[in-house]
Amino acid sequence: MARLSDAAIQDALRTLREWRLENGALTRDSTFPDFAAAFAFVTRLALLAERSDHHPDIDIRYNKVRVALLSHDAGGVTERDVKAAGAISAL
Amino acid sequence: MARLSDAAIQDALRTLREWRLENGALTRDSTFPDFAAAFAFVTRLALLAERSDHHPDIDIRYNKVRVALLSHDAGGVTERDVKAAGAISAL
Amino acid sequence: MARLSDAAIQDALRTLREWRLENGALTRDSTFPDFAAAFAFVTRLALLAERSDHHPDIDIRYNKVRVALLSHDAGGVTERDVKAAGAISAL
Amino acid sequence: MARLSDAAIQDALRTLREWRLENGALTRDSTFPDFAAAFAFVTRLALLAERSDHHPDIDIRYNKVRVALLSHDAGGVTERDVKAAGAISAL
Repeated sequence: MARLSDAAIQDALRTLREWRLENGALTRDSTFPDFAAAFAFVTRLALLAERSDHHPDIDIRYNKVRVALLSHDAGGVTERDVKAAGAISAL
Repeated sequence: MARLSDAAIQDALRTLREWRLENGALTRDSTFPDFAAAFAFVTRLALLAERSDHHPDIDIRYNKVRVALLSHDAGGVTERDVKAAGAISAL
Repeated sequence: MARLSDAAIQDALRTLREWRLENGALTRDSTFPDFAAAFAFVTRLALLAERSDHHPDIDIRYNKVRVALLSHDAGGVTERDVKAAGAISAL
Repeated sequence: MARLSDAAIQDALRTLREWRLENGALTRDSTFPDFAAAFAFVTRLALLAERSDHHPDIDIRYNKVRVALLSHDAGGVTERDVKAAGAISAL
């Protein structure tokens, strides 16, 4: 799958309002009431990742979770990442 | 911790409306949109169980989860189970 | 996918040594040192289930886990269940 | 709980061989065969964290997991982190 141009990424970000481009990856920060709620979200991310065979980077800081999507094989953000970001937002 | 009398259990069940007494255990069935949502709930149950060192029986049937609370050491339902049921309802 | 005959199920069970036929489903019981170890196994089951879109029944009793595989749409055990049982044994 | 001196941390690291001090935190990298195995480990970390009410920072990169332990309230590494590191190594 081809790396998206910067213009195409910016275009995608207009509909992915919680996401931003950071270090070349689609990135989203989420905050939860506590660790248990954060980890339940992380578990849903993990199940979705296995289902779609596309695995985001996930950073857990107690009740905060950062998700970053990047297609390493394509060297950048692809349509697959945009689709995954939409699926994560819909959780 | 002492086993609650049947009257005390019935009294507790008046405030735990989603729960019932089945096979001598406080029991609750929950249905979710899909397996992933059900398993995120199960993960919260697991974290709560470890935190409180009180582990319910958990049955997973795709998008349905049955939770049963019983204090095996007391041979029945105790205040601890009633408290755990309340905590699970609050998730 | 077609329901396997009893003879075909017995044949499959010869290579799935930890499994048995119970209530019409391929069934396996596992015991772990504690709840946390059991739940880590359950999490692997959940990830595998989502990846393969085939979800076993899972019963958690503290450090014991029962897994049951059945293809509800076929009304019995299919090749898919046999394959899933093998994948679970390989975890 | 009091922040450990650099000398005390170096002393603790002699018995915590897989751990290092990085950005002021006890840090360990682990690599697993695949994402599912990595996430099963993360689940055990999560259960241990809730049980002990001490939550490490956790970074997941497909089959690699970084764990970092720091007591934010003490502004550094404490005996609690050393104990948690030992418990994680024992998983």
